[in-house]
Amino acid sequence: MSPTKLEPAVALAELQESKPDRVTIVVLSGDFDRVMAAFIIATGAAAMGMQVTMFFTFWGLNVIRREGATSGAKDLLRRMFGLLNKGGAGRLPLSRFHFFGLGTGMMKKVMSRNRMPGIAELRETARDLGVQFIACTTTMGMMGVTKDTLIEGVDQLAGVSTYLAEARQGNVNLFI
Amino acid sequence: MSPTKLEPAVALAELQESKPDRVTIVVLSGDFDRVMAAFIIATGAAAMGMQVTMFFTFWGLNVIRREGATSGAKDLLRRMFGLLNKGGAGRLPLSRFHFFGLGTGMMKKVMSRNRMPGIAELRETARDLGVQFIACTTTMGMMGVTKDTLIEGVDQLAGVSTYLAEARQGNVNLFI
Amino acid sequence: MSPTKLEPAVALAELQESKPDRVTIVVLSGDFDRVMAAFIIATGAAAMGMQVTMFFTFWGLNVIRREGATSGAKDLLRRMFGLLNKGGAGRLPLSRFHFFGLGTGMMKKVMSRNRMPGIAELRETARDLGVQFIACTTTMGMMGVTKDTLIEGVDQLAGVSTYLAEARQGNVNLFI
Repeated sequence: MSPTKLEPAVALAELQESKPDRVTIVVLSGDFDRVMAAFIIATGAAAMGMQVTMFFTFWGLNVIRREGATSGAKDLLRRMFGLLNKGGAGRLPLSRFHFFGLGTGMMKKVMSRNRMPGIAELRETARDLGVQFIACTTTMGMMGVTKDTLIEGVDQLAGVSTYLAEARQGNVNLFI
Repeated sequence: MSPTKLEPAVALAELQESKPDRVTIVVLSGDFDRVMAAFIIATGAAAMGMQVTMFFTFWGLNVIRREGATSGAKDLLRRMFGLLNKGGAGRLPLSRFHFFGLGTGMMKKVMSRNRMPGIAELRETARDLGVQFIACTTTMGMMGVTKDTLIEGVDQLAGVSTYLAEARQGNVNLFI
Repeated sequence: MSPTKLEPAVALAELQESKPDRVTIVVLSGDFDRVMAAFIIATGAAAMGMQVTMFFTFWGLNVIRREGATSGAKDLLRRMFGLLNKGGAGRLPLSRFHFFGLGTGMMKKVMSRNRMPGIAELRETARDLGVQFIACTTTMGMMGVTKDTLIEGVDQLAGVSTYLAEARQGNVNLFI
């Protein structure tokens, strides 16, 4: 190629190369199956060299809370909410067929029998692959979730504008 | 830059400048928490200068129905459906922990105690910031929702092709 | 345009023309309303000339299972799971107001009265319009879903990396 012209095909290739290959995932759901899917996509994308950000909000915050952590909230209402919404990735229900835990329990048995990683393992893998974890400060305030009840390795506590600053640079932007 | 050549970096910059920074959100869910998240993202993006379109369909139509509006449908089946699906953003349940309204009531108390805006306020803010509201005509027909039962300020009644025409121009396209 | 120069506006036009106009939809949900929405978007996009891929995972696998097909799994746990998750697009519940099938039944009556296509018809239309169907191998293994219990016309059995390879080339990437 001479430096004085630029073929469209080349322009396109350059652009595709320079375009940041980003994935953002808003994890609002606290359902076992949806959270599993979020982590499978996140770890898959990170393994393919894409830059991945997970933004945990509402029930999704449970996924990055320490096992058994209760709310640090002082007032009664938020403390009740914190209890309902008791922490730990090991306690998420299925979005369907919960049957007082039977559905989730069954799926976990099937997964372990088939040697599939659980949510805690996938979360660890995500961390190792450099997936960014952001905890939503708006929901933290609302549900009375304090920083010290979160797992180690949460990269940022931030609000919606931080999420959007990432999402506008990517094209695989999922809401789960 | 000479007019006879174009550096890839320049092409990229031009392109990024001219690319419309759009957000589209399909609001199918009528769950309080998911709808809250939709409005928080929509208002956040609009405040950052992005062009935002919300497409309300299925249960999401409730979010833009007038408080207490019942179905305008003539036939019994659709009227029953309209009752089940009774209008108004003040009546949305949580996706989890509904407990006959206890969960939603508790979350609303916590939000008002923490001076957080509710859905009606966020919807108003979205309107003020120029977020486009589109009501899905397919679902309106199915659920017997008529134009006069919707809130003022809905920009368009339209179908999926109008949504897709917006979405294909953007990159932050969420389904909630 | 002379072959020795390329105006930014032209570069942009070229790029927009050459950019593949892709839609990917992860269908995790098995809820009647969400699946309906997935197919309405998929068929709408394909009709507009966009390239559409649907990736069926978890409960979404039911949508592409043959009517009445039970799990081919050998072990008890997965067979139980297969039963809970009994196949066929005709059996999906609504995400809200299920009422032991009343809600879904009512919506189907309203749809047929208004001459709206059901999920099986939309799925057929999607196939005719060239929408790609991918069944998630990870979930198939977990739920004991075998290839022979799926409908004809599933294009690929594949994992998350195949999904991501499509999604990273598109900009309308939805998770339903």
